[in-house]
Amino acid sequence: MPPAPKAGGSQHAPYGLLRTVNDPADLRRLSPDQLSELAAEIRAFLIDHVSQTGGHLGPNLGVVELTIAIHRVFDSPRDPIIFDTGHQSYVHKIVTGRQAGFPDLRQKGGLSGYPSRAESEHDWVENSHASTSLSYAAGMARGLQLQRKPGTVVAVVGDGALTGGMAWEALNNIAADEDLPLIIVVNDNGRSYTPTVGGLARHLSGLRTNPRYEQVLELVRRHVSRAPLFGRAAYDLLHGIKAGLKDVVAPQGMFSDLGMKYVGPVDGHDEAAVEKALRHARQYGGPVLVHCLTRKGNGYPAAENHEEDQFHSVGKIDARTGQAIGGPASIKWTDVFAEELLKLGAVDERVVAISAAMVHPTGLNRFAAAFPDRVMDVGIAEQHATTSAAGLAMAGMHPVVAIYATFLNRAFDQVLMDVALHRCGVTFVLDRAGITGPDGASHHGMWDMSILQVVPGLQLTAPRDGTRLRQALATALTIVDAPSVIRYSNQQVPADLEAVASDRGIDILLRTELQPRVLVVAYGQMCGTGMAVGRRLSDQGIGVTVVDPVWALPVNPALIELAAQHQLVVSIEDNDVVGGCGARLAQELRFAGVDVPFREFGIAPDFLEHGTRAELLEQLGLTSQRIARYAVEAVVRGPESQARRQPNASIQGDLGPR
Amino acid sequence: MPPAPKAGGSQHAPYGLLRTVNDPADLRRLSPDQLSELAAEIRAFLIDHVSQTGGHLGPNLGVVELTIAIHRVFDSPRDPIIFDTGHQSYVHKIVTGRQAGFPDLRQKGGLSGYPSRAESEHDWVENSHASTSLSYAAGMARGLQLQRKPGTVVAVVGDGALTGGMAWEALNNIAADEDLPLIIVVNDNGRSYTPTVGGLARHLSGLRTNPRYEQVLELVRRHVSRAPLFGRAAYDLLHGIKAGLKDVVAPQGMFSDLGMKYVGPVDGHDEAAVEKALRHARQYGGPVLVHCLTRKGNGYPAAENHEEDQFHSVGKIDARTGQAIGGPASIKWTDVFAEELLKLGAVDERVVAISAAMVHPTGLNRFAAAFPDRVMDVGIAEQHATTSAAGLAMAGMHPVVAIYATFLNRAFDQVLMDVALHRCGVTFVLDRAGITGPDGASHHGMWDMSILQVVPGLQLTAPRDGTRLRQALATALTIVDAPSVIRYSNQQVPADLEAVASDRGIDILLRTELQPRVLVVAYGQMCGTGMAVGRRLSDQGIGVTVVDPVWALPVNPALIELAAQHQLVVSIEDNDVVGGCGARLAQELRFAGVDVPFREFGIAPDFLEHGTRAELLEQLGLTSQRIARYAVEAVVRGPESQARRQPNASIQGDLGPR
Repeated sequence: MPPAPKAGGSQHAPYGLLRTVNDPADLRRLSPDQLSELAAEIRAFLIDHVSQTGGHLGPNLGVVELTIAIHRVFDSPRDPIIFDTGHQSYVHKIVTGRQAGFPDLRQKGGLSGYPSRAESEHDWVENSHASTSLSYAAGMARGLQLQRKPGTVVAVVGDGALTGGMAWEALNNIAADEDLPLIIVVNDNGRSYTPTVGGLARHLSGLRTNPRYEQVLELVRRHVSRAPLFGRAAYDLLHGIKAGLKDVVAPQGMFSDLGMKYVGPVDGHDEAAVEKALRHARQYGGPVLVHCLTRKGNGYPAAENHEEDQFHSVGKIDARTGQAIGGPASIKWTDVFAEELLKLGAVDERVVAISAAMVHPTGLNRFAAAFPDRVMDVGIAEQHATTSAAGLAMAGMHPVVAIYATFLNRAFDQVLMDVALHRCGVTFVLDRAGITGPDGASHHGMWDMSILQVVPGLQLTAPRDGTRLRQALATALTIVDAPSVIRYSNQQVPADLEAVASDRGIDILLRTELQPRVLVVAYGQMCGTGMAVGRRLSDQGIGVTVVDPVWALPVNPALIELAAQHQLVVSIEDNDVVGGCGARLAQELRFAGVDVPFREFGIAPDFLEHGTRAELLEQLGLTSQRIARYAVEAVVRGPESQARRQPNASIQGDLGPR
Repeated sequence: MPPAPKAGGSQHAPYGLLRTVNDPADLRRLSPDQLSELAAEIRAFLIDHVSQTGGHLGPNLGVVELTIAIHRVFDSPRDPIIFDTGHQSYVHKIVTGRQAGFPDLRQKGGLSGYPSRAESEHDWVENSHASTSLSYAAGMARGLQLQRKPGTVVAVVGDGALTGGMAWEALNNIAADEDLPLIIVVNDNGRSYTPTVGGLARHLSGLRTNPRYEQVLELVRRHVSRAPLFGRAAYDLLHGIKAGLKDVVAPQGMFSDLGMKYVGPVDGHDEAAVEKALRHARQYGGPVLVHCLTRKGNGYPAAENHEEDQFHSVGKIDARTGQAIGGPASIKWTDVFAEELLKLGAVDERVVAISAAMVHPTGLNRFAAAFPDRVMDVGIAEQHATTSAAGLAMAGMHPVVAIYATFLNRAFDQVLMDVALHRCGVTFVLDRAGITGPDGASHHGMWDMSILQVVPGLQLTAPRDGTRLRQALATALTIVDAPSVIRYSNQQVPADLEAVASDRGIDILLRTELQPRVLVVAYGQMCGTGMAVGRRLSDQGIGVTVVDPVWALPVNPALIELAAQHQLVVSIEDNDVVGGCGARLAQELRFAGVDVPFREFGIAPDFLEHGTRAELLEQLGLTSQRIARYAVEAVVRGPESQARRQPNASIQGDLGPR
């Protein structure tokens, strides 16, 4: 354990109290004063460690008291606790025996940045796509109820996650199921990433600032202190359901309209207040929504004062100052996109941009600053982002939907039916595609190039460098009768790689005239790997053509012709190998009657844990060494020796490094 | 034009007034009495025609006055009208010049049962997956606004569609965008399919039955008649936003909480009242929700009195009596599933079933009748259905999620992340898979076997007959650590087809010992086609093995070995040929180093219009003649002649019949 930091100016013993907390039960024997001290230690611990490893610092500083209160009131894991999203689970990890793992947070083999069932029986849900917790919780609570098992399910959901459609579907069902043992804790900091958008946010804000609540809270405090036995009667009193109080408590609003019991708002940094609200809610015996107000970055001035996002997610920082550590920021794909969208949008008034709560991370902030009317942040709502884009296109605009690749999965049906079936010119810009690194299984963008294959008419490109990204965006804006997709990673953008020739839209990056000849088809930033494969083959006297198809979909007939002129084709992509660009190219070759030996390389078809991109590429065998070795063996031994090489191999088993 | 029926007991001239209505403008010159007569003629016309062709009769009988009012108040297509879902657009078709097409409704080449942009400039959205209209409308309205074009967008949405998450995402955004020229008409019949579920339905019902509205409506009528100039002031008056009225109008509820202007409820069968509400709403100049109460099947006693679903969707019926015409009902896949679920669920208390507003159509009603606590209808909410199933599995139950194959697209992310990543034992039963027939492009279940390929650990089977379906369900209930999928069509279940042998889980349906030998791999009900292919090949002296892999995913290693023993493999599936089971098998063969010639047959990768299943199979070339001809040419001419047979062919171009 490293020495305690002097974060926030306060001086702590080296987590004297925190070290005594290795299980939630340890929390229950602490006095109010000790709980305050523990909260301070947890904050110092978070700042100390996350400043070293990077991670979701701001959100976790906001849920210290909330998490302590939940673990004191409920009995995890008998009472399952579900975090939505999981990036707010660091405090939960700290109090469930995982303090020692924090130096390796988000490192390969180390502690996950999200809940992880492999780490602890206290973790139930590790997917960190938003808005799922109420559905999970509804199912779990119903399951407990049907089996007459004890337990109350607690869903901790951010206000941002409530903007997602799934949360609505769940609320609509939970509200009608009056006996579900289920508590919904809304962690309302008014900003999931940037300030939360929409009518719901305004409604929550109205609840938050209504002065009548102060009176009610005071009234409730007095009554509750006189009523030691709780239950429905006390609950009714607390919530003014009895006639006398009703007018005072009035604006419970939409949750009550739906039939959902509502408690709040509660100061989420007042541990005793949160605890009291939770105890009442639990004793009610049916679904109750507890509305807690928190401040992102609470207790760490550098975070509290950070305008953009209160340190929603940081890299390495100086714990004292909050300043980023490291050299000058490198230029990322996102930066190139941001610059080019601004340039193209300035001269093309059809261009509008849509973000699902990610204006800054996707680089739309620059365009938004210049053209505020032409950027729409719809909240964590990829479905609405996509279909409203179709509507914009029908009205004559050209929408650019900028989202993370992994979140496109949420809008697959909308891309297929609402955009493609209606031949709408909508451009999807998929950031964080491919292997993304420390955020783990639910954040790798490894499915998009597989599922998009089936969307009729869709055009897709994975640019290999900044120049190609700029060209791709310009081209995409000319596609007015079909969805277009541009995908790139969260990495530094590589140096431009110029083509040596071009063949009907295909960029030829390297060509030697030796025999036998191997065609290397590389997609997006895997062109760098493709070039390395080409050089390795050339060095061994094997002829090679390395190409970037530029547009992966539709499959270019010239690529099929080119393949027919080679003795072996290998494809390389930063996507699930199953059903990806390579598999599609192989299928097109089959339909064209071209039976050249073919082998696709991509991400093994399994969930991929966290780690750096380089570590994961190595683990997956997506390296030039491995691919070149395969190609050499294939062309030197010839197709006969390739056949039946591994009669029982599967895609899964054949993808590891050898 | 056939003679008018005597529906509902009334006697009509043969649509004397209706024949004068060929454009919405024709509606605007009719007197109130004429509008009543027109509504009666439209009902008679609907009953007359839909009783002959089948179709969504009940919903359209419920929107006659609503549709007339919308077309009188708004100026389509300048004011775009979007129906959600499109099955309630028959009246819209009738008043926009398409009466002559009704004899061919839902027939191949005839009028679509949904809006169709190819049919009319008045149709904008033809996807009939629910809950999309508010998003489309928000985008279109914003597009008009940005370009300073005139027009108001009208979304007509059923109360059931409001239970879908997309609708919430859209409402949340629309409510915060105060100047959008957008009217949301809620067609509230209290039952989208069966009675609408959840907190929202209860809230709408509360609005519907609140007696204070009667007073308000009267008050408004008086005030409005004295205020000929409308606008915000009159609107405010109408809605009691001014202090004096507020208490009277009070329960506007959650829509107002979100910041959405709300008008209603209005009697949806009082054309003048609907018209008045719409005119006020339009003049407000921002988004307004108009809540209309309608009765499904209104004016047709046989429908009104039909308990199950008020003739939501009918086949051919006797127009007078409403009785179905035709022989005894055949046994469908759905019936076998319903029976087997009841049987297995009766002895296995872990079994719970989940439906997304489709308890009857998916056959869950029998299980629900026996075990009401163990069936959950979550509304049109496939995302919540899936993730709450994951929660149920985490709590120790075995959920069976029964939905239409095409609607699984809505829950792809949830299947991948919430079920598969968490290794939950959830069984998805996909009804209406493959070519479904008259409902057209958005209802064919042709994508599931492609997108599910990428879900790690998922196990999938397409049973070939009733016995195999029963076995599949029993097996699926034993899979507790991964998602399992069973998919079948909306057709009659074929006679059992017994295997002649079994090889490590693969059913061998036909085997001859001639040479050369072709392996036919047939999935699900395409086993019948596979057998016909096998017989054709045998008749021509070509050896053949026809197999049903039984479980398509994971790919059975025995199938790879079997393929290696043949000179040609053809696969046949009732799914998009791109990325489907055949493509995956070919990919697995490649990774195993088995380079036998391979050709997959499936649905061409494009949107598929309506028609009968037989017509569409013929159109697609998914016939035993076509497949056998391919195989004969391939094995007789040999692989050499196959290569470069069609160097420029694409999957798309190569799939038509020849």
